[in-house]
Amino acid sequence: MFDKQKISPLYTDLYQLTMAKAYFKHQKADTSACFDYFFRKLPFKGGYMVFAGLQELLELIAELRFEKDDIDFLHRSGFESDFLDHLSTFSFSGDIYSVQEGDVVFPFEPIVRVEGNLIETQLIETLLLNVLNYQSLIATKAARIRQVAKDKVLSDFGLRRAQSYGGIMASRAAIIGGFNSTSNVIAARKYNIPHAGTMAHSFIECFESELEAFRAYASVFPNSCVLLVDTYDTLNKGVPNAIIVAKELEKKGYKLKGIRLDSGDLAYLSKRAREILDKEGLNYVPVVVSNQLDENVIKSLFEQKAPIDIFGVGTNLVTGNPDGAVDGVYKLCETDGIPKLKISENIQKITLPGKKQIIRYYNGKNLFYGDAITLVNEKIPEKMFHPFEKSKSVSLTNFKTEPLTIPVMKNGNRVIETQDVKNINEYLKYRLSLLPDEHKRFDFPHIYKVGISKTLMDLREETILKYQANEEKISDR
Amino acid sequence: MFDKQKISPLYTDLYQLTMAKAYFKHQKADTSACFDYFFRKLPFKGGYMVFAGLQELLELIAELRFEKDDIDFLHRSGFESDFLDHLSTFSFSGDIYSVQEGDVVFPFEPIVRVEGNLIETQLIETLLLNVLNYQSLIATKAARIRQVAKDKVLSDFGLRRAQSYGGIMASRAAIIGGFNSTSNVIAARKYNIPHAGTMAHSFIECFESELEAFRAYASVFPNSCVLLVDTYDTLNKGVPNAIIVAKELEKKGYKLKGIRLDSGDLAYLSKRAREILDKEGLNYVPVVVSNQLDENVIKSLFEQKAPIDIFGVGTNLVTGNPDGAVDGVYKLCETDGIPKLKISENIQKITLPGKKQIIRYYNGKNLFYGDAITLVNEKIPEKMFHPFEKSKSVSLTNFKTEPLTIPVMKNGNRVIETQDVKNINEYLKYRLSLLPDEHKRFDFPHIYKVGISKTLMDLREETILKYQANEEKISDR
Repeated sequence: MFDKQKISPLYTDLYQLTMAKAYFKHQKADTSACFDYFFRKLPFKGGYMVFAGLQELLELIAELRFEKDDIDFLHRSGFESDFLDHLSTFSFSGDIYSVQEGDVVFPFEPIVRVEGNLIETQLIETLLLNVLNYQSLIATKAARIRQVAKDKVLSDFGLRRAQSYGGIMASRAAIIGGFNSTSNVIAARKYNIPHAGTMAHSFIECFESELEAFRAYASVFPNSCVLLVDTYDTLNKGVPNAIIVAKELEKKGYKLKGIRLDSGDLAYLSKRAREILDKEGLNYVPVVVSNQLDENVIKSLFEQKAPIDIFGVGTNLVTGNPDGAVDGVYKLCETDGIPKLKISENIQKITLPGKKQIIRYYNGKNLFYGDAITLVNEKIPEKMFHPFEKSKSVSLTNFKTEPLTIPVMKNGNRVIETQDVKNINEYLKYRLSLLPDEHKRFDFPHIYKVGISKTLMDLREETILKYQANEEKISDR
Repeated sequence: MFDKQKISPLYTDLYQLTMAKAYFKHQKADTSACFDYFFRKLPFKGGYMVFAGLQELLELIAELRFEKDDIDFLHRSGFESDFLDHLSTFSFSGDIYSVQEGDVVFPFEPIVRVEGNLIETQLIETLLLNVLNYQSLIATKAARIRQVAKDKVLSDFGLRRAQSYGGIMASRAAIIGGFNSTSNVIAARKYNIPHAGTMAHSFIECFESELEAFRAYASVFPNSCVLLVDTYDTLNKGVPNAIIVAKELEKKGYKLKGIRLDSGDLAYLSKRAREILDKEGLNYVPVVVSNQLDENVIKSLFEQKAPIDIFGVGTNLVTGNPDGAVDGVYKLCETDGIPKLKISENIQKITLPGKKQIIRYYNGKNLFYGDAITLVNEKIPEKMFHPFEKSKSVSLTNFKTEPLTIPVMKNGNRVIETQDVKNINEYLKYRLSLLPDEHKRFDFPHIYKVGISKTLMDLREETILKYQANEEKISDR
């Protein structure tokens, strides 16, 4: 069922439909609108976010249609026929501009811009946030784990602890962030990613002895056999039994593909297991570990020089622990060519009006220096201002630059090629290599510079003044 | 797509399939097995967990079939035809015993017991954990929020921040835990729950003025109009504009259904808004708030005497913040009538062998006193022992008792009636009313007594000894 990239447009908040009806009744169905997707707070107190979920989102948007049972449900919910007739012919026909999936992004940047009529741009809001917020969270978590794991193998074991069906997209995002494989079979099929997995403790318990269980497994999977060694007594039974089977496999021309530790002190046990294996000439047998891992535990294991080759990461990866969600939002910035914003007592919550672009600047070492948010049609600025403190600015003359957002959907049709998730990860690796180390540090990372152009700053001020003047006028009536 | 309760059996960890193949090849496909679902740590440092997800799980298990494309994928993944022929006729034909959905449960209790052949009991593991862990987490979170919100209205606003498709089950679990409605339209349809929602800031911005937007909305939804008042200036513009519209509605015979605050200091703003409304004779207009709420924020708002009638709760509800996951596991306890367990250096991780039941004891006030884990066929014990400290026991003579697990599936067919989620919430309310207050306290709740019977304790000891003797025997060979 999750194989098809299709979902009902009822996968939304009710207010998208009530607003749509009000727009329809007030002849605003054809008003053109532009919305930005952005977030305010970096996940995991880190220095960057990995942008993920775009390709999947575009596929879902392109297929969004109200089927008869959707319409029937809305009818039963009190929506009238004229509006439902309008919805029954709905398909998204707008344009979408976006940063490329797998790039690193920063707070307040308009990562995705959606243009279309008011109803269609509003109807996709919940889906867009739901897909991008979660996949970006998990891809970022995975990238952090990859950062500490260096060239070791990482496998996603999270499905059983995932937030129900969320586990499917989690595995995709894990690969984008740098994982090598997943235990999640349906995700492996859906996203064409390698799957991995061997045995549980229950398997060992189903045989007369651990050794018998190991032999039974090895006889069926001689070429992909990883033995779970901690069911009874890791160092005194499990590892010695695995060694017996490894040698039996050798005689048949096979190599044991690993022993797995799933409990106890992984630093201590992995060192002792490695010694025992090496003493038996089995230095080719990898040590696999799992059990409540995350980037901090893996970092600590390496600091203790634990000789681990493969990490299975579950709960903390797929739930994005400790954050659980990226605070991404979707805000109106223009209707019918008129810039729009939301005013707030908190200046950080005032949104940026107009159709915008992100310009990335490279420093002298050809690494990312900072990003400027500009209006789409302005010249590349040679100066940018702090988004909320007018007096702070930075000069940007003679920097190499690149625009970050590109057209990804035109008139409801995707205009970018479908990419394999492994390729998206390759792109992330490239982009991360351009991000200076101080932004990748876990503890108090250096804040990446994001500013706004003078033109945008002026437009924001002007729009606020217009709103205020307008509201005065209305009150005076 | 999420309307049908059907999912591919590939929604699993790969090792369930590799183990299944090994069982098949070693003539263990018909070995009978029994597994327990239990958890070790209560979510949110609370005193209880709400058990949720059962009905949905049973529906998914009953429909679990390998379709042709599932088999084709496994074939491409290297599984051979004889085993795939076996899978292609698969349907779950076992028995399931369970605590009732909506009951309160505690660590180490065998909440669900699955009996069947080795392959089928193993194949449903990941799905079972995925569904029960998440829904129990969210139902527990929702119950905590309900606890502080008392009789106020609670609405789930979480879909946009949910872990992708996990948002669907989140809304179901929220209702079980005590929420009144959801903004999630697809969940409303799927689970027959009330949906709620009105307008976003973007709606206000699409009209010439806030007042015009309010009037436009009220004209289309005169009978279900909640006005969002914080787009420009809550107290000086938003609330006065809402009052104008409320009075216009009155003249047409309608009542404004609420004003909503979505930013700023909700305690201060709700008090001032209430005063202004009341002065205008609009004391019937409810105050609705949203924005990063959870049980702690709501508690604090009431302590500050904030006059709030309706709470919209999003991120923290649907992601189960700060926990993200219940650590539920699924462990083998018997094969072909022989008790099984997993040994661990950590005594808390040694599992309980044999087919088990939970007996709940009532105290003199007819409230829950404690639960004993027993073997299925033993007499109701009059004494129970601490699960890990043999020397600690408690006498249970003359207590009123009830068994908690009942048959819910027989030979693959559900034997309990489908219940509306609202009814499951009614059951939870009843069960929570029987749980003494000290277990419902948020700070350092009193630990609910869970013990094991003497018979079970003896069986565990005996099984450990047998294992050790067996392993000695094997090593001596």
